[in-house]
Amino acid sequence: MSEPDAEAPIVSVATWQISDATSRERREEVAVEAPFKIQLDGETLAVTMRTPGHDAELTAGFLLAEGHDPRGGGGATGARVVKRGTLSSASCGVCGRDEIDDLVTRLAPVEADTRFQRSVLSNAMQRLPDHQPSFARTGGLHAAALFTHQGDFVVAHEDVGRHNAVDKVLGRAALDGLLPLSSHLLVVSGRTSFEIVQKAVAAGVPAVVAISAPSSLAIELAERFRVLLVGFARGSGFTIYAGRFRLEGVT
Amino acid sequence: MSEPDAEAPIVSVATWQISDATSRERREEVAVEAPFKIQLDGETLAVTMRTPGHDAELTAGFLLAEGHDPRGGGGATGARVVKRGTLSSASCGVCGRDEIDDLVTRLAPVEADTRFQRSVLSNAMQRLPDHQPSFARTGGLHAAALFTHQGDFVVAHEDVGRHNAVDKVLGRAALDGLLPLSSHLLVVSGRTSFEIVQKAVAAGVPAVVAISAPSSLAIELAERFRVLLVGFARGSGFTIYAGRFRLEGVT
Repeated sequence: MSEPDAEAPIVSVATWQISDATSRERREEVAVEAPFKIQLDGETLAVTMRTPGHDAELTAGFLLAEGHDPRGGGGATGARVVKRGTLSSASCGVCGRDEIDDLVTRLAPVEADTRFQRSVLSNAMQRLPDHQPSFARTGGLHAAALFTHQGDFVVAHEDVGRHNAVDKVLGRAALDGLLPLSSHLLVVSGRTSFEIVQKAVAAGVPAVVAISAPSSLAIELAERFRVLLVGFARGSGFTIYAGRFRLEGVT
Repeated sequence: MSEPDAEAPIVSVATWQISDATSRERREEVAVEAPFKIQLDGETLAVTMRTPGHDAELTAGFLLAEGHDPRGGGGATGARVVKRGTLSSASCGVCGRDEIDDLVTRLAPVEADTRFQRSVLSNAMQRLPDHQPSFARTGGLHAAALFTHQGDFVVAHEDVGRHNAVDKVLGRAALDGLLPLSSHLLVVSGRTSFEIVQKAVAAGVPAVVAISAPSSLAIELAERFRVLLVGFARGSGFTIYAGRFRLEGVT
């Protein structure tokens, strides 16, 4: 992963473009995601994952929506914004940030050596729309689905929140006693963030396939915890951002 | 707004389809968004906006990602899930839910009678890509932008989180002393949720224009607080979900 671009919150990463049964290395640009803490009088109001830059604006907007005065005193208590744990550089990964470390230390790498056929990954994504009946009617819902590494469908759910759709899918598997999901893959509509990969790792899932782009932190987390992270899965092609050792049948 | 569909978390709403200078009423289906509280031993772990249904799965998945055992005892403390304040029906609006009421009672309706020309709304959305340089490079960022009711560009920001992009835009306006933004419109990439409309109302914005679908709660909030809510703004056409009285120049 490169240092961030001087002009934009973007890093470049090494990826593998998969098309048919061949792969080709290529550098791609991804959006930076990093944690940011907003405090008021020493009390943490929020730890949000955001794209660095314009943090004063972000804080002012957040305080405004929470009913505080974003322009200074904030009434009797005084609004004070403390910025902590900013990434010293985007290549630093998940180091040195209390809240992230807190989440991450509870996580264990996905130990299973499960590998996946290229066709299983692209077929799973192509079958996701079959499990999006409410999206087809409204255009307003995300979806997540679980498949076995052999390509068998397990469960899918829809929700206005992407993280909720993932919670429902992994929660169903947990209630059914299927954890750890060491021979499964998680398919998600939309993009992949830190939060999505973190949920997958917590459930022991070795592969996450998304229709759109990952964030920088999603990639770092997937690398660190041995997760195959696939993005831009469309038709029979896709891009590998992490965990390429889990891909079978591609030269 | 209809009662929810018996088979799916969907309600139908009256909308106005705008195309050229004519409008046509049409019922459209939208995804239900409603609050849900997750507690552990009486302590609220989260209030999440989710699509109703499969709440046991959602809770199990949430607890799993937070490091709890989702299958019962949860160790020494015992995991207990309390579901409160579920919508009695989707037409109930924002009534009877502590957390939502908390947010909503701090909000005041947008008093200004600002009206918007159809062309200003569609032009603003068409100009959003000009302010998405990082999305163009990565495909991984949302954007929000502020325009005056005359169509003049004010500010735009990108972020991996849609709510962050909105915070940055409204926060910049707050820092510049522009609040309330009673003669402005907010343009957002993607969908509109409760949270996006709530932020707009807090800043006094009378119009929100999105490229994709709103949730049920976004529509209810916009109606209640006199916000023009536009979805599926593509080309010169769009759909009005709330606050139609603010649209000028359409028969």
